Amino acid sequence: MRLDLLRNSAQKFGLDGYVVTRGTSILYFTGFRLADFKDGIGLVTPVSGEAVLLVSKLDWEMAKLRAGGCGIKPVLPKMRAWEAILEVLSDLGLRHVGFDYLDAETYLKLRRETRVRLMPDVVWDLRKVKDEREVALIRRASEIADIGMKVAGEVIRDGMREFEVAAEIEYVMRKHGSQGVAFETIVASGPRSAFPHGWSTSREMRDGDLVIVDIGAVYEGYRSDLTRTFVVGRAMARQKKLYRIVLRAQERALLAMRPGAGCSRVDASARSFISDQGYGEGFIHGLGHGIGLDIHEPPRLNRFSKEA
Amino acid sequence: MRLDLLRNSAQKFGLDGYVVTRGTSILYFTGFRLADFKDGIGLVTPVSGEAVLLVSKLDWEMAKLRAGGCGIKPVLPKMRAWEAILEVLSDLGLRHVGFDYLDAETYLKLRRETRVRLMPDVVWDLRKVKDEREVALIRRASEIADIGMKVAGEVIRDGMREFEVAAEIEYVMRKHGSQGVAFETIVASGPRSAFPHGWSTSREMRDGDLVIVDIGAVYEGYRSDLTRTFVVGRAMARQKKLYRIVLRAQERALLAMRPGAGCSRVDASARSFISDQGYGEGFIHGLGHGIGLDIHEPPRLNRFSKEA
Repeated sequence: MRLDLLRNSAQKFGLDGYVVTRGTSILYFTGFRLADFKDGIGLVTPVSGEAVLLVSKLDWEMAKLRAGGCGIKPVLPKMRAWEAILEVLSDLGLRHVGFDYLDAETYLKLRRETRVRLMPDVVWDLRKVKDEREVALIRRASEIADIGMKVAGEVIRDGMREFEVAAEIEYVMRKHGSQGVAFETIVASGPRSAFPHGWSTSREMRDGDLVIVDIGAVYEGYRSDLTRTFVVGRAMARQKKLYRIVLRAQERALLAMRPGAGCSRVDASARSFISDQGYGEGFIHGLGHGIGLDIHEPPRLNRFSKEA
Repeated sequence: MRLDLLRNSAQKFGLDGYVVTRGTSILYFTGFRLADFKDGIGLVTPVSGEAVLLVSKLDWEMAKLRAGGCGIKPVLPKMRAWEAILEVLSDLGLRHVGFDYLDAETYLKLRRETRVRLMPDVVWDLRKVKDEREVALIRRASEIADIGMKVAGEVIRDGMREFEVAAEIEYVMRKHGSQGVAFETIVASGPRSAFPHGWSTSREMRDGDLVIVDIGAVYEGYRSDLTRTFVVGRAMARQKKLYRIVLRAQERALLAMRPGAGCSRVDASARSFISDQGYGEGFIHGLGHGIGLDIHEPPRLNRFSKEA
């Protein structure tokens, strides 16, 4: 059970307990998620004994139905999150506690009363290794994004606005069971295709434009992340050439991605090829990243990654 | 100009400068927004002199096109956010700086080198008073949500799944120019209508179900938030009675909402009516909240609010 693995890790680090505050991590450990994957108040997990999920009174009934493996305690409306966490830490006699995330204000309040250590890797070391069910859900989320991308290819044409393409993609993904979108849909055309985070505007596409479509679906909380490049109308020779360079760089990276391969080496396998072709300056982002309940998870595939 | 008002506030509090880290606040002050309204790296604003917007190299080209009233500096991929902020603080000679938000880890790093004060109200005191353009954009976002709600009323029927209704709502809002959704669309039917954050599942609606539809659109960054209750098929007498109680409570609150009225008093105007009708226990949330670039902004309309 995942909560037992968390207990083991916490114990190994000499902690009495661990408090999970990230919404996606609470989902990972308990099966309960808030709308928008919002951060819950906290899952207080003692090294021995039952974990306690703190939720606002608004979410209590749903948490009772969904959350497993822990007790559930509603937080009164007048209580602040840190007060509720402190109360449970005190009830359980926990004095030395790890956290996955805290805002600075909450950290300062908690530190007055207890020993607080920020140790996000305790959770990420568990989350970054996916089990079979997780792989299947990510695959399903990816299949739904594939359907969205197919629609993008069908509707992109001269005169279409970026947000109209986004509307069609999101609609078909929703109809296939996506829980909203994994991140804001990006349909960036013409000069805007140079913006990696260009979202979708009212710009009308024109024949000859490059169009970057970067989309993701969500299935049972798991996310996909799929990017493809289109040309409105017929591609010019130079566009085809650029497309092929990126495609070949991606193929090299896929070959380099083997158990034990260092993440920075995988990045280098694609980056060196693009640099050799003379476009190194234009490769302004990392090669990739882990996905799961969050859209960006460790490990990171970039030049500075130290992960294997 | 908004940045000048920020400078004045910072000076009044005896600060050398102020660093804005929230994505929606960076949008408020500069006009630049990232996809998903993500938090930027930081807008460093000295009390006198030009503000500097720090953005990742990925977002630099878009920031140059969009951000106004400040210098723009790209952060190298190998640099951490706090390193980039410290570098600019040092360049500008700023020693005593306010922040709107920091995570605990960044706070601890920054505090080693400079005096850091968390003062989110400096920004919120500006943002919570909307100018005419902002009111017009919120109105437009609300009109788009109205269109979505109209579609909800047309498609809700026996046998329809919650997420299918969500798909139709989101599609029509997107086609009318909404930048995605203001928050995860909630279509919660039958017993699930009791969950205030019940999102949208594959549950099939049945005749006689109550359905809560809670949706929002985004227009030029500004959000709307609209909730309505439907009945599948014909409403029973008890459902009509409950609906009327909530409607009358809302009408009372609208009458109570006048300049100078305390937020907790406005909440009480609705809450006391619902309590008198015998349903006080079921009113488990606040009456309302401010909206704007964020979906939940001050002031809060609840029992504990101290705002006028």
